[in-house]
Amino acid sequence: MHSKYIVIEGLEGAGKTTARDVVVETLEQMGIRDLLFTREPGGTILAEKLRSLVLDIRSVGDEVITDKAEVLMFYAARVQLVETVIKPALAAGKWVIGDRHDLSTQAYQGGGRGIDPQMLATLRDAVLGDFRPDLTLYLDVTPEVGLGRARARGDLDRIEQESLNFFNRTRARYLELAAQDASIHTIDATQPLDDVMRAIRDTVTRWVQEQGA
Amino acid sequence: MHSKYIVIEGLEGAGKTTARDVVVETLEQMGIRDLLFTREPGGTILAEKLRSLVLDIRSVGDEVITDKAEVLMFYAARVQLVETVIKPALAAGKWVIGDRHDLSTQAYQGGGRGIDPQMLATLRDAVLGDFRPDLTLYLDVTPEVGLGRARARGDLDRIEQESLNFFNRTRARYLELAAQDASIHTIDATQPLDDVMRAIRDTVTRWVQEQGA
Repeated sequence: MHSKYIVIEGLEGAGKTTARDVVVETLEQMGIRDLLFTREPGGTILAEKLRSLVLDIRSVGDEVITDKAEVLMFYAARVQLVETVIKPALAAGKWVIGDRHDLSTQAYQGGGRGIDPQMLATLRDAVLGDFRPDLTLYLDVTPEVGLGRARARGDLDRIEQESLNFFNRTRARYLELAAQDASIHTIDATQPLDDVMRAIRDTVTRWVQEQGA
Repeated sequence: MHSKYIVIEGLEGAGKTTARDVVVETLEQMGIRDLLFTREPGGTILAEKLRSLVLDIRSVGDEVITDKAEVLMFYAARVQLVETVIKPALAAGKWVIGDRHDLSTQAYQGGGRGIDPQMLATLRDAVLGDFRPDLTLYLDVTPEVGLGRARARGDLDRIEQESLNFFNRTRARYLELAAQDASIHTIDATQPLDDVMRAIRDTVTRWVQEQGA
């Protein structure tokens, strides 16, 4: 079977780290062991520097980062990761498991910040061409549930400090895009943890079997 | 007269700094004294941080900056400068004199690096909309002349260390774009300095008079 790029998406506190562990365990049980992990924004030296600039600071001095500059920095980090890490890994036969990818930008910046979705789609196509994840697991939680969990873990970064309305708009956009794209599988992540893990395991198992068929 | 955005463009060593002084002097003699200077990439705290990342280092650790990441970082810096500095200054009645703007990206990345010009135009339109300089002075020199002057000034940065072929392609793209766009005025900057300065003075004087008519 060809190597695949699987992405885990969702709001803060949706359970992406747990989901990754379940995906890895499921793949390994199916004999797929040559895995690479990525997270966005980040995953290369340049991309991590851009991540710090975007996420760790609310503003640069007295200067607020404009929405468009933020989006362009995300895309700079993303294309650097895709070209120097993800594509070479896939070409070398590794499966790549990503913590966030382009769908986050479409949901957070397009939904949350209200940046024109058409502009974001234009940027994505201009920068990434037709490169897309083979499978995306979208962990759906309400912002109330997700942020409660994220807060319990510690400090929230710049984007995590946005308002509840911001996250409601982000979630709505996630759900809208998931409904339009058969490669995005929505997992109800407000269920009890055992049920969430089972849903992820079942989804990944079925999907991998379909790929091999 | 409405405030205007005048940009000075050209290869390294074309004489942009001298040209700026001549533009300022010419404008002041015409009674236009409320000026703001910008340079790209840079001109805001965030943009200067991005400038350092792009220009000061050949690579980040062992990692080479991909062409697309470079372009996106230039656009992040540019949109931050346009939205937070240039547009507010123009709205406040200042004339803005820019050392480089979008034409540099079209020429260096599109011509020099060979990035698809259509992709660059798509990015520009998606990010900047229809925002354009009112007047661009393109100082045309051969790379041999320009780089000779730049070297005499001291160290060359990452982009200035590119090959002569790179700069020949960049110059060819500058000339091609200047031929297509009536707002770009080409100045022969290989002439003796007095003649270059006179050409700039005449061009700016005539252009400002046309605007006021």
